[in-house]
Amino acid sequence: MPKLDLDAIPQTNATGYPPEFAGPVQGRWYRRLAPASGITDFGYSHVTLEPGAWSAQRHWHQGEDEFVVMLSGEAVLVDDGGETIMRPGDVAAFPKNDGNGHVLQNRGDTPCVYIAVGKPSVTDCHYPDIDMHLPAGQGFRRKDGSGF
Amino acid sequence: MPKLDLDAIPQTNATGYPPEFAGPVQGRWYRRLAPASGITDFGYSHVTLEPGAWSAQRHWHQGEDEFVVMLSGEAVLVDDGGETIMRPGDVAAFPKNDGNGHVLQNRGDTPCVYIAVGKPSVTDCHYPDIDMHLPAGQGFRRKDGSGF
Repeated sequence: MPKLDLDAIPQTNATGYPPEFAGPVQGRWYRRLAPASGITDFGYSHVTLEPGAWSAQRHWHQGEDEFVVMLSGEAVLVDDGGETIMRPGDVAAFPKNDGNGHVLQNRGDTPCVYIAVGKPSVTDCHYPDIDMHLPAGQGFRRKDGSGF
Repeated sequence: MPKLDLDAIPQTNATGYPPEFAGPVQGRWYRRLAPASGITDFGYSHVTLEPGAWSAQRHWHQGEDEFVVMLSGEAVLVDDGGETIMRPGDVAAFPKNDGNGHVLQNRGDTPCVYIAVGKPSVTDCHYPDIDMHLPAGQGFRRKDGSGF
């Protein structure tokens, strides 16, 4: 059946971030919907941010477009332009290689939910605020290339 | 700014369907969000179905995955498996080449809104319920290949 049974799809708060940068995403619970629905053209996830949680460390991708659609609750979108409130029905787009790091932060006291869409990352990901870099096809490094 | 000003993006109810099959989509008003947001990896649209409107004629794509996320209102998803109610927060996926035609129908008396995601169609699209076919790279034909 085309309609997904979201509750039946495993939810995880796993992250590959090194421990010193993983704190803000401990309350980010996500379901990867593409494998659950037989879709391969792009990835998409159903994400719940508990109060205080972030979508990621602020970042931008060299080679992958992304966008998010808010479903419930409220988040603060932080980018180089400042802060923007995201409410249900709002859409934000993050074109590849724009150099404008973005993050959603739940600063409220109730969870927020959104769908995030993008292609699996195969290019470098840049983190402007912290000493971390994700080179294509490798694990996380410090900006000087050393490991954690 | 990453957040889209949806009201500022042009909305259209244009369709390439031949007149005899265009009736159900006259009340389908959509905004193409990818060009408006600088995204090229995939297409995505913000769609409002007025009461009585359909998302499309029931169809399936040979080579493009699709999914929809409901934002407001209610629609009936019709596919080979029957009818399923779609409400805000619901997600339905339509894997390429599954041979299971799908359509969203607004049978209520208020509009419904959803986001549809997919790659631009470059393969055949099949319409199981009507005498129409969309061959890759050509215009709409009847199933015997003749024009409208």
